[in-house]
Amino acid sequence: MNMPTSWGPTLQSLQQSLLAMPPVAALQVHILGWQDGRLQLGAPLAANVNDKGCAFGGSLSALMTLAAWGVVTLTLAEAGHTADVFVADMQVRYLAPVFEDLQAQAGFEEPAAATALVEALRQRGRASARLQAQVALQDGTLAATFTGRFVAIAQGGAQSG
Amino acid sequence: MNMPTSWGPTLQSLQQSLLAMPPVAALQVHILGWQDGRLQLGAPLAANVNDKGCAFGGSLSALMTLAAWGVVTLTLAEAGHTADVFVADMQVRYLAPVFEDLQAQAGFEEPAAATALVEALRQRGRASARLQAQVALQDGTLAATFTGRFVAIAQGGAQSG
Repeated sequence: MNMPTSWGPTLQSLQQSLLAMPPVAALQVHILGWQDGRLQLGAPLAANVNDKGCAFGGSLSALMTLAAWGVVTLTLAEAGHTADVFVADMQVRYLAPVFEDLQAQAGFEEPAAATALVEALRQRGRASARLQAQVALQDGTLAATFTGRFVAIAQGGAQSG
Repeated sequence: MNMPTSWGPTLQSLQQSLLAMPPVAALQVHILGWQDGRLQLGAPLAANVNDKGCAFGGSLSALMTLAAWGVVTLTLAEAGHTADVFVADMQVRYLAPVFEDLQAQAGFEEPAAATALVEALRQRGRASARLQAQVALQDGTLAATFTGRFVAIAQGGAQSG
């Protein structure tokens, strides 16, 4: 895995976390970008194709879940926190079949949620936030949308930053 | 892959469809049982483990999606139909971490939906139904729940049965 040298340690750590999970490595999930609080992940169609020649619905939801999970993880890491981040619930709508490599993008549902999440984790060792994500085709067509709630729990109660 | 000799051709065909999808083969999904309109699927924890040593949320939702998709596919196959079956939307709640091999079970949300699905596909070449699924731990604890809508489209407009 060649990671861009421009990536900071938190982004390199996230890519390593993704590769360390067997089901995520199998789907060949990789980071495409992280900017302005939005994380973009990609995965090749060949590793995620279904019986109809398009992307497996389970792969699309997994990719969006991971993108949203990554936003929470990166936001906390950049604020100096190490936390276990769990998905609590999610809603997915499938709008169009995907016959190309998969690209998902995620961010907080409310812009102020990132600051609130960091503050809550610092104060209580536990925090939650709602994220949204989507898969769009190369021509801009929305193929799938995701909303979900994530819970972060400070590791071992130790909180730095 | 050794399949039980008691399995009929539709169940064997479903297992082959699962293995033919790279992301599903990677998660090592296999059929555990099909009885009274309910399909049970399993997958080993090792192939589906996350960074916290428990089952990846994306694997749990994929397994429940596949179990529900399988119920629609098997119901139509047993009625003599060949159809493409797509997931249209889904809602998942994660209730407890899974530190053991994964087991999901799915069925129609309403018992009468199976008959209505077959009849609608026969008449219009297209049909939809709501399914529910769940992942339970070996001690009976509910670990995740799923509801979702699936759409079936008769292949090539040809309808037998």
